[in-house]
Amino acid sequence: MPNIKAIVEYDGTDFSGFQRQSSRLTAQGEIERALAKLFKTESHKIAGAGRTDAGVHATGQVVSFQIPETFPEDKIVPAVNGLLPISIRVRSAQVVSDDFHARHSAKSRAYAYVVLCREEPTALLTRYAWHVWSPMDTQAMNAAAQTLIGRMDFASFGLPDRSGGNTVRRVQNLEIRRRKDMVFCLIKADAFLRGMVRAVVGTLVEVGTGKRSPESVAEILAACDRRECKVSAPPRGLYLSRVEY
Amino acid sequence: MPNIKAIVEYDGTDFSGFQRQSSRLTAQGEIERALAKLFKTESHKIAGAGRTDAGVHATGQVVSFQIPETFPEDKIVPAVNGLLPISIRVRSAQVVSDDFHARHSAKSRAYAYVVLCREEPTALLTRYAWHVWSPMDTQAMNAAAQTLIGRMDFASFGLPDRSGGNTVRRVQNLEIRRRKDMVFCLIKADAFLRGMVRAVVGTLVEVGTGKRSPESVAEILAACDRRECKVSAPPRGLYLSRVEY
Repeated sequence: MPNIKAIVEYDGTDFSGFQRQSSRLTAQGEIERALAKLFKTESHKIAGAGRTDAGVHATGQVVSFQIPETFPEDKIVPAVNGLLPISIRVRSAQVVSDDFHARHSAKSRAYAYVVLCREEPTALLTRYAWHVWSPMDTQAMNAAAQTLIGRMDFASFGLPDRSGGNTVRRVQNLEIRRRKDMVFCLIKADAFLRGMVRAVVGTLVEVGTGKRSPESVAEILAACDRRECKVSAPPRGLYLSRVEY
Repeated sequence: MPNIKAIVEYDGTDFSGFQRQSSRLTAQGEIERALAKLFKTESHKIAGAGRTDAGVHATGQVVSFQIPETFPEDKIVPAVNGLLPISIRVRSAQVVSDDFHARHSAKSRAYAYVVLCREEPTALLTRYAWHVWSPMDTQAMNAAAQTLIGRMDFASFGLPDRSGGNTVRRVQNLEIRRRKDMVFCLIKADAFLRGMVRAVVGTLVEVGTGKRSPESVAEILAACDRRECKVSAPPRGLYLSRVEY
């Protein structure tokens, strides 16, 4: 059976995360339901590159799954989208080699975090950004970000998939950019611990708003203790933007 | 009674436009309802700078209204927002001179139109942009835009408020910018005819997608006949962004 790599975009607001859960609305659950309906199978399992939390969005989630031999490749996108809720869209799909696995083959994941930084309320970004009312020093945030780039033990910032698992990860890029009243935190790593992006962003926003010094971030990292980092940015500002293979 | 100028942001998706209509959800209707509740009056009329259509958003709509002598200026924003649906937020409010009127005092209105230009479907921008699937030549669009800048009769692009009314408007700025797969049409004028921004954007997108030559836009303009311009960009990509006084 041909193996498919598909890029998926979703509005995470109404989902209990990516990963399938019985009796809860999830992105994986909806895609599997659409595929089972399309291919008239009882269930149709897919693999996903990143297990986004409840409320987290994706512009570039990658999933892989098999399709029947006879199904035309160019019909996958319209056929699956026709069976999905409008909050999930398959952006593209292509046949890949049999050994491709959306999760295991991934070399890196990139996330974008959107902070709306202004004193005034918003009606348009409530579900798509973290609204921080105080001014933000992005230069201090970028200074702190430097200490988090590299191959290091990120135990203070997240949990491994299974208890006692490896907490060493390689952060390849971490950069803060401002555009008017929007602050973007862009982070890329080989893989992330559970809660890691939101803990890193929460900590950097503490630095940006002057609640913590840029230097203190190195101390959190050095502690290698999940209890050291108590902050977590809310899911609504987070986007899984790109997975590389 | 103190006169207030307030800047308002709203997600127009679920509104039947800005202007009050009996038995329909409108931005003006919701703000007036909140003010009447706050000040315990039977009705509380406001004026608005721009009459946005159903589905059109605003980041910088301006409204004016009066408040009781005793009400503290710095409590207006939190008090009104506490009574509004989350799809409308008062961004700021200030006491202004008694002769200030959101609509009559306005010197110019600026709108932004967002086009998502890519071959792939979207889940995140369905309600916030016009998705055009074909490639777009923004250079041709900017060339055509030049012919629409100035004080001219825009009768081909919109209707006056009342039948037989003046259709001359002064377009001060009209510019197309691209950023990755997003195309932004920015337009500013002293005032706009009904449907004018969406007709102009619809026409420029025809130019961008090669359905019409940049030169033909001058012919539509010269005709001074509303039947000459048959296209209209959908409301969901349009934002009233700024009103100047």
